[in-house]
Amino acid sequence: MDRPSLPLSINQATVRPQWTLRQAIEGCARLGVEAISVWPDKLAECGLSEARKMLDDHGMGVATYCVGGKFASAELHGTKVELDRLRRLVDEAAAIGADCMICVVGTVAPGSIDLRGARERVLDGMSRLLPHARSAGLPLAIEPIHPMRAADLCCINTLAQALDMCDQLGAGTGVAVDVYHVWWDPDLEDQIARAAGRILSFQVCDWLHETRSTSNERGMMGDGVIDIRQIRRWIEATGYRGYCDVEIMSANDWWHKDPDEVVRTCIGRYETIC
Amino acid sequence: MDRPSLPLSINQATVRPQWTLRQAIEGCARLGVEAISVWPDKLAECGLSEARKMLDDHGMGVATYCVGGKFASAELHGTKVELDRLRRLVDEAAAIGADCMICVVGTVAPGSIDLRGARERVLDGMSRLLPHARSAGLPLAIEPIHPMRAADLCCINTLAQALDMCDQLGAGTGVAVDVYHVWWDPDLEDQIARAAGRILSFQVCDWLHETRSTSNERGMMGDGVIDIRQIRRWIEATGYRGYCDVEIMSANDWWHKDPDEVVRTCIGRYETIC
Repeated sequence: MDRPSLPLSINQATVRPQWTLRQAIEGCARLGVEAISVWPDKLAECGLSEARKMLDDHGMGVATYCVGGKFASAELHGTKVELDRLRRLVDEAAAIGADCMICVVGTVAPGSIDLRGARERVLDGMSRLLPHARSAGLPLAIEPIHPMRAADLCCINTLAQALDMCDQLGAGTGVAVDVYHVWWDPDLEDQIARAAGRILSFQVCDWLHETRSTSNERGMMGDGVIDIRQIRRWIEATGYRGYCDVEIMSANDWWHKDPDEVVRTCIGRYETIC
Repeated sequence: MDRPSLPLSINQATVRPQWTLRQAIEGCARLGVEAISVWPDKLAECGLSEARKMLDDHGMGVATYCVGGKFASAELHGTKVELDRLRRLVDEAAAIGADCMICVVGTVAPGSIDLRGARERVLDGMSRLLPHARSAGLPLAIEPIHPMRAADLCCINTLAQALDMCDQLGAGTGVAVDVYHVWWDPDLEDQIARAAGRILSFQVCDWLHETRSTSNERGMMGDGVIDIRQIRRWIEATGYRGYCDVEIMSANDWWHKDPDEVVRTCIGRYETIC
């Protein structure tokens, strides 16, 4: 049998409403999960030194710091305010020992139709942040986000596009591959192969057959249409040996359940589906 | 000023709940619109001979017959039932003088994770239908559908993928370019150029900045984030001289308005935005 060979991580988004960061670290440790992905708002609530101590005490790995980004703001672009904010995120990610910082890079402002301009700002903004990230030893993972969020969340929408950007930015950059965002891409197998050595994060959940909402309607692995195992094999074939990070934003279902049950279900599905 | 040079067509989906086909033909003629796109259910309700007579009487062009397809059914694939149904659609499209039949090709069945299999069935199913369509002189327009509908509507999700399929199928096939489905594509300009001579339909609406639903939440041109004029210029640069077909499925807004007002707004926006 083709068993999961990538270690499991639970992304805190999966139990966002139920658990603080403290509870997530304790809960994951109790259930035998060895790594989590941390979000900035949850880290701020906990406090950096307390979070570091708890992660250390529980021997908990940090798959990703998730998410920093929003490089596309026309208003703030190139300002010290923006760069300081982004550098602070990099420092936080490095301080908690994250393998990478995931960048969901932003997009056009309301009222703008200049998608190309937004994409140019992202490239420029990332190139400004990159020296600091390199100094901190913290890789930046560009995450292609599903095209249905191109207008309001992120203007990088395919793995090919994210890799083109890495080609331009160079060392210290890579990609985050979340099956939810890329499963439909007819070019996926080739682009994953092209990403060899640059995959910084692999994230899983499922796409429910009749998805109605453009946000927070993700499914548990095995409940939808994604051939997760196939994608995981392509990812592994590149040499990736990082975490399999379970990230399920689910406003109508899993976010209402007992978090222990959610994590136990993630573990079970990870073992049988991923 | 860069004025619209492609003739206007109103897709009946734009006034779906308000107008029968008879009312749409009369209404569009009254408001000075010279072409419409017709849907099979509306045609069936009207009756083919009555529809032909009315179209003739009003000198109304038919931009597209919209939509035939669903080639991906695992259950019906390769059966006479399926082929007969598709041939009937082709015959109807030819009978009303449509410029093409738009194919929204279907996808995986609920419970299946075999996206690749669905894509293979589409190619095979279209190749079976194609001889009949060629005999009828009716081009088949493959429409790439937004990736957010890959699970429940259509497994052809980029213009590149649709063109690859045309390459394989050959004469009698082309593509329908709907800005709603492709506006986000970083490869759009190049793929439109590649589509030269094979663009059978150009459709417009807008993508609202904060789109919440995966279906029927389209905006009026000018109300969203798409640079429609830029895309229209790329389309025209290929030599396309067909219709600019306005297709706005809008369950919460335009479908509740007076249809004369809707069409008048389409005309106004077509003149200023497209």
